[in-house]
Amino acid sequence: MPRIIEVREGILKKNDMLARTLRTRFSDARVSVVSLVSSPGAGKTELLHKTLATLTHTHRVGALVGDLATDRDARRLAQAGVPVQQITTGTVCHLDAHMIAQAIDGWDLASLDLLFIENVGNLVCPASYDLGEHARVVLLSVTEGEDKPLKYPTIFNTADLAVISKIDLADAVGFDKHEAYRNIHEVGPALTVTEVSARTGSGMDGWLQWLRQPLPSRR
Amino acid sequence: MPRIIEVREGILKKNDMLARTLRTRFSDARVSVVSLVSSPGAGKTELLHKTLATLTHTHRVGALVGDLATDRDARRLAQAGVPVQQITTGTVCHLDAHMIAQAIDGWDLASLDLLFIENVGNLVCPASYDLGEHARVVLLSVTEGEDKPLKYPTIFNTADLAVISKIDLADAVGFDKHEAYRNIHEVGPALTVTEVSARTGSGMDGWLQWLRQPLPSRR
Repeated sequence: MPRIIEVREGILKKNDMLARTLRTRFSDARVSVVSLVSSPGAGKTELLHKTLATLTHTHRVGALVGDLATDRDARRLAQAGVPVQQITTGTVCHLDAHMIAQAIDGWDLASLDLLFIENVGNLVCPASYDLGEHARVVLLSVTEGEDKPLKYPTIFNTADLAVISKIDLADAVGFDKHEAYRNIHEVGPALTVTEVSARTGSGMDGWLQWLRQPLPSRR
Repeated sequence: MPRIIEVREGILKKNDMLARTLRTRFSDARVSVVSLVSSPGAGKTELLHKTLATLTHTHRVGALVGDLATDRDARRLAQAGVPVQQITTGTVCHLDAHMIAQAIDGWDLASLDLLFIENVGNLVCPASYDLGEHARVVLLSVTEGEDKPLKYPTIFNTADLAVISKIDLADAVGFDKHEAYRNIHEVGPALTVTEVSARTGSGMDGWLQWLRQPLPSRR
């Protein structure tokens, strides 16, 4: 089906060009942009909620939140008292650069230090779409099983940080941490890994420290 | 982007026609076909492993297993001593009817009573692709949160059964069962719900009983 492939490559190329423009805009405005990707239910919103609530004391933070339906996550995040914009994708399984450009239309980017983008819960499709972010963070919850990096390699080897989430449940689910690290490093040998529990606060310091450092600029 | 939409609709229409042909072939061969969909890590493979190991004593069972990469799941399932065929999708985020047709090429369908299809872990894209199955089962693990049906409505309202999985972890994660049922029934008012823990065996009887009944034929 050469026609299909051609069209898909056309979409990706156009997306990448727009993403590059967005990244320049973000950098010019001195706002660092971090995207979060994971399976549904790995804990992106909970982690982001706690992160925004803490960082808002020292940084000017905001968030864009992608979902197929409902604005539940945006409402949850807005409780932290920071600007949050919902992106409802309908049946589309990922965010793309055009959606980001539309969502920030009218925003004064220079009024932010750090902007988070929470993608639709999906370990496959978001891997192919550059959103103009400076760093991509992939979450792997201990409840999902240690094999997920091997089964969804692209999302892990395009990420800048892997966060093992819900670490407080590790014992209850029999999580094998060594195997998880081995699998993450098999697909992303240089990938930094950190562990958090947004619920108990365990590991939050390491995660916040990573966010406060200059973001990777490999893109 | 009308050209893109047109092409996508073309793909779906072709898929649905092929799926209809497959369903007729399955019905003619008197093999019941059940597909499983869920997020990555909701426990499809574990549930299927236990199911095949039990049903193989009374039924002739087989499985097709979709994954982006690796044949880990197929190897796990083959331990049950039943025919298992891996479908490796590469970067494609869902199975389609063409992949199913290719995978069963050369199989004697009449030698099976029950064929399972385990889709790629993804709550979005698989919803749009009819695989020729007689019934679609969606798994929701207690660790994912009760809001997933509202956030991924299509996959729930196109399913014939919702399985709440990892029910043994419900207390550890503070799962609110009533809210989960309410959310499932908000998007699929007539959807049957069952609860299982493949690990402890809790609820397996109800699930196996559902499988042994004549499958829904609403498709």
